[in-house]
Amino acid sequence: MITVWNEFRHERNDDKIKKIYPNGIHNVISEFLKKENIHVTTAVLDDEDHGLSDEILKNTDVLIWWGHIAHDEVDDAIVEKVYDRVLQGMGLIVLHSAHYSKIFKRLMGTSCDLKWRDDGEQERIWVIDPTHPIAQGLGEGFDIKQEEMYGEHFDIPIPDELIFISWFQGGEVFRSGCTYRRGKGKIFYFRPGHEAFPTFYQKEVQQIILNAVKWACPNE
Amino acid sequence: MITVWNEFRHERNDDKIKKIYPNGIHNVISEFLKKENIHVTTAVLDDEDHGLSDEILKNTDVLIWWGHIAHDEVDDAIVEKVYDRVLQGMGLIVLHSAHYSKIFKRLMGTSCDLKWRDDGEQERIWVIDPTHPIAQGLGEGFDIKQEEMYGEHFDIPIPDELIFISWFQGGEVFRSGCTYRRGKGKIFYFRPGHEAFPTFYQKEVQQIILNAVKWACPNE
Amino acid sequence: MITVWNEFRHERNDDKIKKIYPNGIHNVISEFLKKENIHVTTAVLDDEDHGLSDEILKNTDVLIWWGHIAHDEVDDAIVEKVYDRVLQGMGLIVLHSAHYSKIFKRLMGTSCDLKWRDDGEQERIWVIDPTHPIAQGLGEGFDIKQEEMYGEHFDIPIPDELIFISWFQGGEVFRSGCTYRRGKGKIFYFRPGHEAFPTFYQKEVQQIILNAVKWACPNE
Amino acid sequence: MITVWNEFRHERNDDKIKKIYPNGIHNVISEFLKKENIHVTTAVLDDEDHGLSDEILKNTDVLIWWGHIAHDEVDDAIVEKVYDRVLQGMGLIVLHSAHYSKIFKRLMGTSCDLKWRDDGEQERIWVIDPTHPIAQGLGEGFDIKQEEMYGEHFDIPIPDELIFISWFQGGEVFRSGCTYRRGKGKIFYFRPGHEAFPTFYQKEVQQIILNAVKWACPNE
Repeated sequence: MITVWNEFRHERNDDKIKKIYPNGIHNVISEFLKKENIHVTTAVLDDEDHGLSDEILKNTDVLIWWGHIAHDEVDDAIVEKVYDRVLQGMGLIVLHSAHYSKIFKRLMGTSCDLKWRDDGEQERIWVIDPTHPIAQGLGEGFDIKQEEMYGEHFDIPIPDELIFISWFQGGEVFRSGCTYRRGKGKIFYFRPGHEAFPTFYQKEVQQIILNAVKWACPNE
Repeated sequence: MITVWNEFRHERNDDKIKKIYPNGIHNVISEFLKKENIHVTTAVLDDEDHGLSDEILKNTDVLIWWGHIAHDEVDDAIVEKVYDRVLQGMGLIVLHSAHYSKIFKRLMGTSCDLKWRDDGEQERIWVIDPTHPIAQGLGEGFDIKQEEMYGEHFDIPIPDELIFISWFQGGEVFRSGCTYRRGKGKIFYFRPGHEAFPTFYQKEVQQIILNAVKWACPNE
Repeated sequence: MITVWNEFRHERNDDKIKKIYPNGIHNVISEFLKKENIHVTTAVLDDEDHGLSDEILKNTDVLIWWGHIAHDEVDDAIVEKVYDRVLQGMGLIVLHSAHYSKIFKRLMGTSCDLKWRDDGEQERIWVIDPTHPIAQGLGEGFDIKQEEMYGEHFDIPIPDELIFISWFQGGEVFRSGCTYRRGKGKIFYFRPGHEAFPTFYQKEVQQIILNAVKWACPNE
Repeated sequence: MITVWNEFRHERNDDKIKKIYPNGIHNVISEFLKKENIHVTTAVLDDEDHGLSDEILKNTDVLIWWGHIAHDEVDDAIVEKVYDRVLQGMGLIVLHSAHYSKIFKRLMGTSCDLKWRDDGEQERIWVIDPTHPIAQGLGEGFDIKQEEMYGEHFDIPIPDELIFISWFQGGEVFRSGCTYRRGKGKIFYFRPGHEAFPTFYQKEVQQIILNAVKWACPNE
């Protein structure tokens, strides 16, 4: 089972964001995964236990995580449970501003800090490793018309695999697709996905998340 | 299509080896892959063009290579064709003494030299990366009762992924499962498989080769 | 300045260990570094602030850490200060049983668990990366007559660089020399150094720690 | 001893280039290294044995290589000698269009192909690994006002270390500072340095080449 976790605050509290993602980012992700006959569930911050009961976590093969303004509200005890599950083999896909989530920082052992600028500029994502299953079907890369800029230096451990590098109109580059192993779990960080842009509706972004879900499934 | 290439000399010229692999190492590998409903063909050194016509190479998704005493007899022009196909995306699985094959040295850019001792000693293979699809189903590792020893320093580029490390009774260690990317192609080097021992009948060895075949298939 | 930190408990509480390291492991390490004209200081668990005041940490270029039975007594606030200094550029050398120290686990993001057996068996350390400055002067490797065994699977992130692999008499292998970057800091984990054996008097072990000190110094 | 090898054709045959590098690129590089009290010699394509006698190669600790239009004129036998010396421990610094030199392709085992556009556009080089000695003194990165563009996909093996990523005005990114080990030798590829621009006079470029020379020196 795939569990899509979302903070789900911007989409309820900000009319501009609500228009883009009326049912939340998690439901957009969940919908395109379901079309691929993947068994998906969703969970949000304001659910009991953030929607991440022991039962749900135990049955989750890959957890997708989106968060931004409320990282601090995520309970430390739940973070430890997610951490334990990753070490046991659960895959984890960390999207965009979740670079600053407690769970990602816990697994990385670094600050996960970066440069950013929210000007809605052009992003071009280049495929660096065309052999990687997460790059399947992407060709040389693709453009996102408007996105928040994230720039280096990105304070992460050296990725096990670097799959994508982003170019930004304003002069920055960014390691946009990075994999890590922790215990028996596979982790994929993917840069795009600011709440103010319709990024998660773009077919290449959906393709990458779908590829990553398949890649991050645990070994038996 | 998977093509299993074998030098096929020891098995015809040496009675001791013939007893172990009467139809050649290539047929043992080919047989267990066929049981998994994989489309497999075989090719040997003494075939025309070493059995590697342009047509065969074009249709090969993953090429498995075993060679030992006759590396020098492999035609340079064929080596270049195999090399080109790897860069285009064909997977390559390099077994045991094929560390010294022209194609492996061509792709590595190093001498590929190593220590060796043919005493039929115990080898214990430890899984170093339990998240890797090639390690699927292997647990912590396994023993091979008798094998030729290969020892460090193994003069290869730093592997992209190190999956297995071997322990040998006599005091050596060896990086036994290594992956590389070259162009669009994925390469897996796997250490065991001396012709004088029934290594390719062992179920863990077959499992690894099967896993590697699936892993090395090209991205579409 | 190099700071050698030691738990310093076994050497005071256990007569057998006291005989080997009468002034503590930290002083043996400190002495051979001083012979190389390196500015060294020492700190132990039972010092105020574990000997790691803000002033000391600020002036430390490389911190060497040995701990074993009292990891839990290390104050979390001090661990966070050491962590911050590593991200700012301080080098960290983690010895033997300090694989389980709070600071190493904090920086790795994994359990850092491993197999072990305290039988005083032979360890043979093989140099895997002869180009690495930490392997300078080591040749192909060396033996330690008696050591505690550490075996795979060692639950660490994939090392940025794998320099040494250990072979143990009893059948295990271990990634014995591993580097990591976290923030601006360089980290080296080195396996040997059980308190019950005179490992830190061995010239190759001293050479490696000296090499690592030079390697781990921060960029200006 | 450091040997700076240059094709030295553009600077003699093209008046525009001659104005920028009247004594050749090799002498500009050689001059700034000499100021650091480094023992430097130079060699060019049209010297006997391309200036790379057995004696010179034997005494060279690090070889710097610049070539562009005459890769094919480099004698295969000399390439093999350089290759052998790298495996024995000689450092190799490969500059700009030398990505297509025989020696680099021989050591990489890939096509080393890339995108390019010679429009004299802005290049911004970002430091990705601030811990690396080759990035010493560079801060977050720097700009080159006018350079030839090189873009991904760059068909190289996955670098052992990725130190710099370039951003180009026209929309491309490039892995601009990459290290590799081959045998006992350390290799550094550095992207900038088109003959039509005064890149080798820029202080950051000189700093990087100086850092790389120190880094690439062989272990004793």
